[in-house]
Amino acid sequence: MRLVRFGDRGAERPGLLDETGVVRDLSEQIATLDGPMLDPDRLASLAAIDASTLPSVPEGTRLCKPVDRIGKIVGVGPNYSDSAKLAGFRINPEPTIFLKAATSACGPNDPIEIPKLANRVDWGVELAVVIGRVAKYAGVEVAERAIAGYCLANDVTERNFQLQRGGQWTKGKSHDTFCPLGPYLVTPDELRETDSIELWLDVNGERQQIGSTGEMIFKIPYLVSYLSRFMRLEPGDVILTGTFAGVGLSYDPPRFLKAGDRIRLGGTRLGEQDNLCVSI
Amino acid sequence: MRLVRFGDRGAERPGLLDETGVVRDLSEQIATLDGPMLDPDRLASLAAIDASTLPSVPEGTRLCKPVDRIGKIVGVGPNYSDSAKLAGFRINPEPTIFLKAATSACGPNDPIEIPKLANRVDWGVELAVVIGRVAKYAGVEVAERAIAGYCLANDVTERNFQLQRGGQWTKGKSHDTFCPLGPYLVTPDELRETDSIELWLDVNGERQQIGSTGEMIFKIPYLVSYLSRFMRLEPGDVILTGTFAGVGLSYDPPRFLKAGDRIRLGGTRLGEQDNLCVSI
Repeated sequence: MRLVRFGDRGAERPGLLDETGVVRDLSEQIATLDGPMLDPDRLASLAAIDASTLPSVPEGTRLCKPVDRIGKIVGVGPNYSDSAKLAGFRINPEPTIFLKAATSACGPNDPIEIPKLANRVDWGVELAVVIGRVAKYAGVEVAERAIAGYCLANDVTERNFQLQRGGQWTKGKSHDTFCPLGPYLVTPDELRETDSIELWLDVNGERQQIGSTGEMIFKIPYLVSYLSRFMRLEPGDVILTGTFAGVGLSYDPPRFLKAGDRIRLGGTRLGEQDNLCVSI
Repeated sequence: MRLVRFGDRGAERPGLLDETGVVRDLSEQIATLDGPMLDPDRLASLAAIDASTLPSVPEGTRLCKPVDRIGKIVGVGPNYSDSAKLAGFRINPEPTIFLKAATSACGPNDPIEIPKLANRVDWGVELAVVIGRVAKYAGVEVAERAIAGYCLANDVTERNFQLQRGGQWTKGKSHDTFCPLGPYLVTPDELRETDSIELWLDVNGERQQIGSTGEMIFKIPYLVSYLSRFMRLEPGDVILTGTFAGVGLSYDPPRFLKAGDRIRLGGTRLGEQDNLCVSI
């Protein structure tokens, strides 16, 4: 199942993509796609619906972040060996984790704001994991069963704010629109091979990143299990599993985003994002 | 006004403390004390209620965190000059900020869990600011008007997880129960002098911390304004404004919490917390 949220800001509705890629309206069936709805058992009940019986949504309708009321966004630091080396990070024996403000989430095609006084805004295409069941000290198998689905994410970062403004990464990770998610949430039954997802990112039509989740240092079930030792994961939480070579910081000279730039990114079975950078 | 939430886990209700310190039930007036309810204008309408007309709640009823559905908990690093020096931190020209998982919040008298494999669990009494209006690039005056109220907080940290497990503080800050809040939310009309709040913390009856918010490096309106440059602050967000000398890490040898320890802390006009540390 490929679940979406669609509609104008403040009037978002839940939906799904049918086999032909048409958005179908689920708002008669469920109020929204938030944590309580993401329990894999409840998602299974949605999967039983015949999509062709649902009203179709006009093409061109805005898609929103596919999860409503995100509790927290947990990021994972360098998690692909090539990227870690390129960025000059030491590879840790265990994952580096950080939090992005949940308010940074936005839709897959929404404009990305360049914050005031920002001049080092960077990108990072990632596979995001969405949690559907509470996980606390979860073993790897329990952690895997806590996953509601996967979506595409861009972990946008202002590198000066992250690294040169006093200590913690939070400052550079949390601006509004710094976490485009979607276009859709893919349930695990439709994405069994999370180890071979090809992810790519272009800026102004030029390929900057291309890689495969097969190169992850820490695999997804382990990451969910690991995180659950440090914090309770709840339905509606989002985990960004790290990016790889080709972020702007890794080029010499580094490349950063400015208003007017267009970012496109995509992943196998995850769809595509298309964002215009705007000043505020 | 001193607002509370009370009742057993999963059945929390909103209330207020009357002049005599008796908890009064507000659940006929409002569904809960969450972000939308925290708008200063809506709080003003609650203030018009004659508390003596509200049902009283039996003494000994559990008090919960005074804010429901906390969006994010933003922490501020060393923000008292003495504490910064003692802990060996450099004083930054601007605030250090970090995020604690919102799931770490708990009630003022709830047990504090000692995480598995933890042996350096530390305390930190703080003044918490609760946001009542959206703030983004807010000037100092607008930021001040975005404040719904204040409460007592304990920024509990596992120092190994924070400092020696791979990079960011998040790991040591986010465990369940690592952010006791309350007992009540005090509205600004009842706490005009946020610069002279005395805060103290005892472990097993022995005073560990005593200080005054007058010693803060970065004052509250500035902090709210500053944070709003890096992330959207929303009603129901909580800001921890930093702690001062006397955290366990600052002693030689350091002192840390273990199951069975009892922590009490308090602050001028903010009430007291009383927590037992428990193993899990």
